[in-house]
Amino acid sequence: MARKKQNVFFVSDSTGITIESLGQSLFTQFPDTEFLQTVFPFVSNEQEALRVIAHISRITNLNRQHPPLVFTSLADESLKNLFLSHDIPVLDIFSTFIPVLESRLGAKASHAVGETHGVGSPLKYVQRIKALDFTLNHDDGTKFTDIASADIVLTGVSRCGKTPTCLYLAMHYNLKAANYPLADDDFENPGLPRAIVEVRNRLFGLTISPKQLYRIRQERRPDSRYASLEQCEYETRRAESIFRAARLPFLDTTSISIEEIATTILQHLKLRERTGGSSLPEPPVGQSQ
Amino acid sequence: MARKKQNVFFVSDSTGITIESLGQSLFTQFPDTEFLQTVFPFVSNEQEALRVIAHISRITNLNRQHPPLVFTSLADESLKNLFLSHDIPVLDIFSTFIPVLESRLGAKASHAVGETHGVGSPLKYVQRIKALDFTLNHDDGTKFTDIASADIVLTGVSRCGKTPTCLYLAMHYNLKAANYPLADDDFENPGLPRAIVEVRNRLFGLTISPKQLYRIRQERRPDSRYASLEQCEYETRRAESIFRAARLPFLDTTSISIEEIATTILQHLKLRERTGGSSLPEPPVGQSQ
Repeated sequence: MARKKQNVFFVSDSTGITIESLGQSLFTQFPDTEFLQTVFPFVSNEQEALRVIAHISRITNLNRQHPPLVFTSLADESLKNLFLSHDIPVLDIFSTFIPVLESRLGAKASHAVGETHGVGSPLKYVQRIKALDFTLNHDDGTKFTDIASADIVLTGVSRCGKTPTCLYLAMHYNLKAANYPLADDDFENPGLPRAIVEVRNRLFGLTISPKQLYRIRQERRPDSRYASLEQCEYETRRAESIFRAARLPFLDTTSISIEEIATTILQHLKLRERTGGSSLPEPPVGQSQ
Repeated sequence: MARKKQNVFFVSDSTGITIESLGQSLFTQFPDTEFLQTVFPFVSNEQEALRVIAHISRITNLNRQHPPLVFTSLADESLKNLFLSHDIPVLDIFSTFIPVLESRLGAKASHAVGETHGVGSPLKYVQRIKALDFTLNHDDGTKFTDIASADIVLTGVSRCGKTPTCLYLAMHYNLKAANYPLADDDFENPGLPRAIVEVRNRLFGLTISPKQLYRIRQERRPDSRYASLEQCEYETRRAESIFRAARLPFLDTTSISIEEIATTILQHLKLRERTGGSSLPEPPVGQSQ
């Protein structure tokens, strides 16, 4: 059966990333509907808003039985009201949550536009770029010049998800994330490779099912020894026994996303970024191994 | 004046990324408050929920005048109700939006847990990894083996934001994003560098203020010719005239975030990822140069 189609518009005075992510989170609850999504970012004045309204009105008139869903994230109330006055109902995240927050905080919202994915503090921006630089320079164990200053070091066999996870951790949590691939030399010894012994307390292992690893490696280097099922079985078995012998926390990445891997690692290493210096009486509850 | 402090908890049955992003978006509206944030991800059963509830109750009892804010994103209603029955009021994104969506779509929500940042379709996962591989292999113009298959190519002087933006586009939009740094050889000729002429229609320029470039380069290689203000002025001036002569779209990255750069580029190149094949009568409204 063909899925029902539903037009969706995300209208934001900033990038639209938050509201799009919120929408996509909600849409997973309606698997029988296909959501045709368009993002209108940087809608921060009346002229831009009227252009978007004209577009949405045209789509609405094409099929009045099934009007589009319109999500807005507009700090300026008058822009949001412009949609309502043009007969476009909106799901607005500011109107929904800001009044509750104002009452709970005993403060008025600033209604400043476009702060969400702005550049933020110069300090944080520099941290982010430095984290990305570090991560790119400590990828795949090739240039381990400054491993001691890593916030986190991932290890595991080639193609188990180390690099994408490191990049995600650097991009979104400003963490200096290095990764060290386990390879033939390392498998011959029972202990941790020498290169990463000194960062033991910041090490996290990744593993993967041999079959999934086989599929991934076959795409990369078909019919090589590297991609053979036998080699994939050998490497994952050896990697896991290194992890166990060294009592490293480790995670099977076979059927989880980069976001889920990163979140699990942050919880384990208690590295989740916080705005302030919240001191918790106990560590946050994480996914256990 | 010291900013007021407010404890915040994000409780999710998945990674918590969406709800944390929503919260942070709302918090920018209250600049006088410092939000002390903790994320509890993967809360998908009663036992986990009760552990989190015990923790939040303890924090609440420490200062009953200022109870924490609790944001939840729990597809399972009974887990959310557990918070309410323990006298913890929550701001729940599902309860807020799902009823409206059910009514608009004429369908019931599945209440399936943790879909938001799950691995999604295997096809999308493979696309994401391939995009990241491509981007890492086409960074800084060093290994331009397959530039013809790039979805997008960024160009500009060294340290203007090309690499972080490419990684963001690959990570979040599955785009094969290459970048080509403009360097001395390129400045001597008026036209586009030969290496990128063939991808002209997918080219986007980045520029930056000479002073900001100077600050960034001084951190990297203090007192070098590369980092001198004179060189920074020369390179940005030459880069911009190459962009203008070739009629390339380009953007000044001096005071905007990676997310804002990426969003602007997507709008210009009309590459914003969509769930379905929405065919729009006209391109979305983007930020104009």
